Amino acid sequence: MGAEQPETIAAIVAAHRAGTMTPAQTIARTYQRIRDHNDPAIFISLCDEKDAIAEAERLATKDAASLPLYGVPVAVKDNIDALGFPTTAACPAFSFTPTHDSTAVARLRAAGAIIIGKTNLDQFATGLVGVRSPYGIPRNSIREDLIPGGSSSGSAVAVGAGLVPLSLGTDTAGSGRVPAMLNNIVGLKPSLGMISNAGLVPACRTLDCISVFALTVDDAALALSVMAGPDAADPFSRDRPLGDITPFPTGLRLGVPRKGQLIFFGDKKAEAAYADALKRWTALGATLVEFDLEPFYETARLLYEGPWVAERYLVIKDLLASAPDSIHPVTREITAAGARLTAAETFSALYRLQGLRKIAERTFANIDALVLPTAPTAYTTAQVLANPIELNSRLGTYTNFVNLLDLCGLALPAEMRADGIPFGITLLAPAGHDALLASIGRVFHANTKLTVGAKGAAQAPLAPLPASGGDEIPIAVVGAHLSGMALNGELTALNATLIEATMTAPDYKLYALKTTPPKPGLLRVAAGTGASIALEIWSLSSSAFGKFVNAIPAPMAIGTVRLADGRSVKGFLVEPEALGDARDITAYGGWRKFMAEAATKQVS
Amino acid sequence: MGAEQPETIAAIVAAHRAGTMTPAQTIARTYQRIRDHNDPAIFISLCDEKDAIAEAERLATKDAASLPLYGVPVAVKDNIDALGFPTTAACPAFSFTPTHDSTAVARLRAAGAIIIGKTNLDQFATGLVGVRSPYGIPRNSIREDLIPGGSSSGSAVAVGAGLVPLSLGTDTAGSGRVPAMLNNIVGLKPSLGMISNAGLVPACRTLDCISVFALTVDDAALALSVMAGPDAADPFSRDRPLGDITPFPTGLRLGVPRKGQLIFFGDKKAEAAYADALKRWTALGATLVEFDLEPFYETARLLYEGPWVAERYLVIKDLLASAPDSIHPVTREITAAGARLTAAETFSALYRLQGLRKIAERTFANIDALVLPTAPTAYTTAQVLANPIELNSRLGTYTNFVNLLDLCGLALPAEMRADGIPFGITLLAPAGHDALLASIGRVFHANTKLTVGAKGAAQAPLAPLPASGGDEIPIAVVGAHLSGMALNGELTALNATLIEATMTAPDYKLYALKTTPPKPGLLRVAAGTGASIALEIWSLSSSAFGKFVNAIPAPMAIGTVRLADGRSVKGFLVEPEALGDARDITAYGGWRKFMAEAATKQVS
Repeated sequence: MGAEQPETIAAIVAAHRAGTMTPAQTIARTYQRIRDHNDPAIFISLCDEKDAIAEAERLATKDAASLPLYGVPVAVKDNIDALGFPTTAACPAFSFTPTHDSTAVARLRAAGAIIIGKTNLDQFATGLVGVRSPYGIPRNSIREDLIPGGSSSGSAVAVGAGLVPLSLGTDTAGSGRVPAMLNNIVGLKPSLGMISNAGLVPACRTLDCISVFALTVDDAALALSVMAGPDAADPFSRDRPLGDITPFPTGLRLGVPRKGQLIFFGDKKAEAAYADALKRWTALGATLVEFDLEPFYETARLLYEGPWVAERYLVIKDLLASAPDSIHPVTREITAAGARLTAAETFSALYRLQGLRKIAERTFANIDALVLPTAPTAYTTAQVLANPIELNSRLGTYTNFVNLLDLCGLALPAEMRADGIPFGITLLAPAGHDALLASIGRVFHANTKLTVGAKGAAQAPLAPLPASGGDEIPIAVVGAHLSGMALNGELTALNATLIEATMTAPDYKLYALKTTPPKPGLLRVAAGTGASIALEIWSLSSSAFGKFVNAIPAPMAIGTVRLADGRSVKGFLVEPEALGDARDITAYGGWRKFMAEAATKQVS
Repeated sequence: MGAEQPETIAAIVAAHRAGTMTPAQTIARTYQRIRDHNDPAIFISLCDEKDAIAEAERLATKDAASLPLYGVPVAVKDNIDALGFPTTAACPAFSFTPTHDSTAVARLRAAGAIIIGKTNLDQFATGLVGVRSPYGIPRNSIREDLIPGGSSSGSAVAVGAGLVPLSLGTDTAGSGRVPAMLNNIVGLKPSLGMISNAGLVPACRTLDCISVFALTVDDAALALSVMAGPDAADPFSRDRPLGDITPFPTGLRLGVPRKGQLIFFGDKKAEAAYADALKRWTALGATLVEFDLEPFYETARLLYEGPWVAERYLVIKDLLASAPDSIHPVTREITAAGARLTAAETFSALYRLQGLRKIAERTFANIDALVLPTAPTAYTTAQVLANPIELNSRLGTYTNFVNLLDLCGLALPAEMRADGIPFGITLLAPAGHDALLASIGRVFHANTKLTVGAKGAAQAPLAPLPASGGDEIPIAVVGAHLSGMALNGELTALNATLIEATMTAPDYKLYALKTTPPKPGLLRVAAGTGASIALEIWSLSSSAFGKFVNAIPAPMAIGTVRLADGRSVKGFLVEPEALGDARDITAYGGWRKFMAEAATKQVS
């Protein structure tokens, strides 16, 4: 890759670990790119280059292998505290010097990241456009006439332009997704509370999320895994397992809006690009399922017309009283309205929202994730400046309802339109399904073969998945639970999935027990005195695994089964006391083979 | 028992099933008792006796064994819809005729209950006193000068006086607990959303709970189990397993307030009765752990000073505008204030509440349940009429914060004071722990040997527990996982609880394996050739059980262990192949004994 090519986190960390680049060299290259790109509206404050390089050099004493973001330069939206930088929220009169890192930034640094600067935003994160800031309008990294998107404008452009491989945004109503689409990058908006908001200037405290911009889904998911987790400093943070990236699931069901419910504001190219994306999902094996988008639109209207703007009002109440002119006029107009809303209106809206949440819950009963346009269309800066509130609102068509409904989201590049405008889709699922979205989103993005960001860099092949460490537990079955056999329904009823068919190590004997239904017993014997026995490995949630084990009758037990390839897995064993009159069927090599021959004999 | 003796649900259903009473006879007796008791302020409307008896007679076609409330007469607070009765919420101008049963009532009827009437309440369930109703003041069933307690006044008195064995109340800030104490009965306030609120006139929709009054904990728990479960008609209902009543756990940790934090408003008898109750818990084997009650008090202040009164305002907004004089003056004064609160104040309170919830969460990290006075003192009707708001507020000292913190509660009779005033305690635990509270509460109540209600009826002995059918899975451990041993922390880290110490059937051998840490292996052998081995049974959630089993290394396996008393339980077994050089320690009768003697030998 040339000096102009953006690198992924994966490539940078690999180079640092291999010693082909040092963190200091990466930082120096970052600053060179910032100079070359020459857009003073991206960063509100930038670390002194020497200091950043010194910080990178200090990493030399650390263990590269244990730091997932070893030497990765990161840009942080300027409503998130990072020690050494003022926090402005793009409002100089509001600016303050934080005394601590935000929890998110602290966790990034602990993972080896180097914070190089704080990025521009729509003031107080109010907007989806990126033009509402006294620090200027960052140039869209793809097409200069387009808005950068907001509110996380600087963070999205910094990644799109290849200045940094990772940046933090925030996302209350779409600020982490709309600018991702407009800069041809990935925007990961985690479940509410997944990343602590301690050290974040709130927009709407009950709805705010710190979000991630990266060039690839794997990079974004890695950054999320570094930051995720409960935090005593943020009462809204939650203790929720993140889950693992898994292979693309079979039987994936994706929700698409009913005919006539999609809105593109006349943008035929966006409409066509969305149709193309759906075709791609179908080709990847997903089933598209129509759902009613109207309750989601109603939720979005609730955000605009409801009480949540009072949360924004609370943030800048003092400033509105003391120095109203220091606030961007559009932001001021929107936010001041929050003062006039009542408690009764608030509870009424909360009641309706609860009803809408239940409707969304029922939608997801039959659908794994929704796939929607990230935004219905794209606008130029000139268009938005001429009609700032209405066009901003249009951009939130498919994003506004997401945090109110407690969904997680993943904005993905989907197509580069013929007019050079990037089009993107967003996957949405109930809170806690962040890993599912990443698991399917990475495959979709790879399948598009799109270059990443604005600099034309090709996607690297998808990395192989690491071994599972999440809530799923594999179990080896050797008898009546094999697929198609008498008790297999006990597994499928618990939503178990078949992982693979393989063999035990050659240290087992198999016995046919005199049970109903017929079952075999697997017994480990001294090395060299047994055989390899065929088995299937199924995967269950820990709770389902617990229930499954609890329901197994004597003389069956669940112990450790050694596999032919040296791995171990939990699986069925038999108590030896039960083998008195059981027949040794080891020679068949497995229960399926034995049953097939036994059946033949009965018939003949 | 004579005709004046109140019977429990258990006794009534048993008599109906045995045929010693018919449901129609039970209903006729109920009406006789209502006439004898002669308090027109208990019921706002009463089913015609002939109709109720006809309904009871129709039960004859049903299967008594499958109906848990077969022929049980039930009274329902008159803010809960029941077909055939107007719903008044104790405000004639608000009254309407419902077209459906509330979900709770529908489920009671489906279980065989007969709704005989609708009970009086503090108007719109606003109050803890029972004196704020145009339908009069129900006489306290224990001492006529005392307030009945409220807001569920009629329902509590109806059970206390032995008119019905079961009634529904509601509980937003204590209305299902305070009157339970004042009538010497059990008040069960379930977790929010456990019982659907569909068909309930709201007080504060985000905090309302339908609650249960009964003479015993087992009766109340049975009624809850009949009504609990999600309901599409109430978006606030939740799908949450109820759990099973379990034996009194060993190692129970109960939270008691720090010295100086308790408030009794000078009532020395209440203070002494609370101290007695704590002594009883200690005698039962519980450990008392001090905790900081101040954040709970702060939460209570938030309820009174915060935005939630706007929810009450929403309920009667139209009536306040059209017919303000139709509202009780105290209720009107309290509720009208809700109109003046702002959205910004609401969100500020929600933020603070979220912080307080986290503090409560941390409190419960180390404590299974709190044990508090149900109310700090008791007042006479004359006292409350003279000072209606302040004394009402005092009664909520230990109840106001509960629903804001999403706790479940169980109010229990604790003592009959020398002055004839009943004193009660309330157990509180995080939402979802309703079954735990019932499991320990039933043992406490039985231990008090108090008569139930107002009529001097003795408690029947506690019924034996049914077999577990909930999410908890028991596991037998025989070695390093025994309490106090090397690997016991693996169990406690998964929130396992010790259920009992017992023995295997006499069909096992125990071996000392050459592992680190030292572990034994349990092997089932032919009947008569082994011995009984000591073990402990621990209980884990299915998910924790799954994780625990998954983490067990070879040669251990989890199979079925037969106990000396004939029961079976999942537990540790060993693969026989691993026993090559292991020592047979069966003669020790258990791992603890073996380790103790082995340690002695090492020292000597």
